[in-house]
Amino acid sequence: MIVDGRALARDILARTKMRAQILVRQPRVVAIIGSETPATKSYLAIKAKRAMDAGCLFETRALGASFTDADAVIIQLPLPGGVDQKEMCDSVPVEKDADVLSRVARGAFERGDTDALLPPVVGAVREILVQSNIALRGKKAVVIGSGWLVGAPVATWLAQQGAMVTVVTKDEGNLGAVLSSADIIISGAGSPHLITRDMIREGVMIIDAGTSESNGALKGDADPACAPICSLFTPVPGGVGPLAVACLFANAVTLAERANSFILPS
Amino acid sequence: MIVDGRALARDILARTKMRAQILVRQPRVVAIIGSETPATKSYLAIKAKRAMDAGCLFETRALGASFTDADAVIIQLPLPGGVDQKEMCDSVPVEKDADVLSRVARGAFERGDTDALLPPVVGAVREILVQSNIALRGKKAVVIGSGWLVGAPVATWLAQQGAMVTVVTKDEGNLGAVLSSADIIISGAGSPHLITRDMIREGVMIIDAGTSESNGALKGDADPACAPICSLFTPVPGGVGPLAVACLFANAVTLAERANSFILPS
Repeated sequence: MIVDGRALARDILARTKMRAQILVRQPRVVAIIGSETPATKSYLAIKAKRAMDAGCLFETRALGASFTDADAVIIQLPLPGGVDQKEMCDSVPVEKDADVLSRVARGAFERGDTDALLPPVVGAVREILVQSNIALRGKKAVVIGSGWLVGAPVATWLAQQGAMVTVVTKDEGNLGAVLSSADIIISGAGSPHLITRDMIREGVMIIDAGTSESNGALKGDADPACAPICSLFTPVPGGVGPLAVACLFANAVTLAERANSFILPS
Repeated sequence: MIVDGRALARDILARTKMRAQILVRQPRVVAIIGSETPATKSYLAIKAKRAMDAGCLFETRALGASFTDADAVIIQLPLPGGVDQKEMCDSVPVEKDADVLSRVARGAFERGDTDALLPPVVGAVREILVQSNIALRGKKAVVIGSGWLVGAPVATWLAQQGAMVTVVTKDEGNLGAVLSSADIIISGAGSPHLITRDMIREGVMIIDAGTSESNGALKGDADPACAPICSLFTPVPGGVGPLAVACLFANAVTLAERANSFILPS
């Protein structure tokens, strides 16, 4: 099955909008922008649209601007050179940190706190598995990459769910041997078409959270030629990416719910 | 080789004491106690001795007491029922959190921040590997257990070091198959003698961070009968335990160094 990430994202956004609409104040999401590159502009244009779909107000502000009036704050990465990205992420208080990038929010997630939000990419992975009715307990999962934005939080969450999780780097010499025994592969390497059809067994699930640009086209970590033999496959583009954006706004509305009061039925 | 955790701990404590002695103020470590059980009393008696070995003042205070005068604060777990352990850990500001149990300190560690302290059990694992000149890059590591106190942080750190890390639960049906291909096994299951000699290959390294009481005796996760065929083996007691306590006080002095000024050579 090829997962339609855009369709799942639309579902999440529709549910999120219903939650946003019963709040006293419309949730306000502020994106902080450090550098305007074609890539960040395109990300922000997409986020502005999805914010609307999720029933949120969306505003972009420059680095250094106040965001005390916001229900949720997004630091648009990457920031310009010389700015400490993690330090900037830590300037967002946990009760506004929809992206789960501050150390406070990340620590709560990593400890498995009951009120911790999931990083959006983890939320996307969770949604894909929930929608396909896949339980993780006892499954063999392989995570490629251990970066702080994708691999590390995904591996943490899979282990919390009781999966047997193996984390490998994209430079693993014998990637095929590691992948061939996996029930589920989640990749966050950012290496175009690193995973090839000869490396995987029939029936494996591939959730591809790696996106890289190659000759002007977006490419995932998995060669699309893998798809026909997978029981579940997320394409790039149109897989994890839009789902993660939807989960970001679902997180934003959760934070707004915690900060605001509901409209009481009359 | 059977690792002498007590000897390694003495070395760390001696080095830590030298660092403590050149500070303007002697580092003050405050342990917050919620419940006085035989176990917590025995832990605290050991910590009081090790604090002295590390050149630190050590004081115990009741839950709710102020600790603004402390350079480092330890919340002695477990806390009595009804007290939220994680919430109490979060009451320790990151600049005093030698145990790396607050979400702020854990998040910094999990993101791999350059100034993050290692949780003491991770420090112990690191010390054992450094002292034995073992590089992790490319090694196959298996972590048993994914609890927030041992398994999860150890797995996170091993992946950060470039090891191929597999996390399994202690209930893994085929534990032997997973362990048999490992270069290094780190266990934090708390299941006495879960790892038996028939499960492991000759030459493997076992770092045993699991401690449980069984018939009045402390037992590790690894059957001591494994030791003769291991290239490295940490016993229980006398392995990871004393090393982790030493790393706790090394962390405390690091925090004191950050808060205090040094005595300038005259």
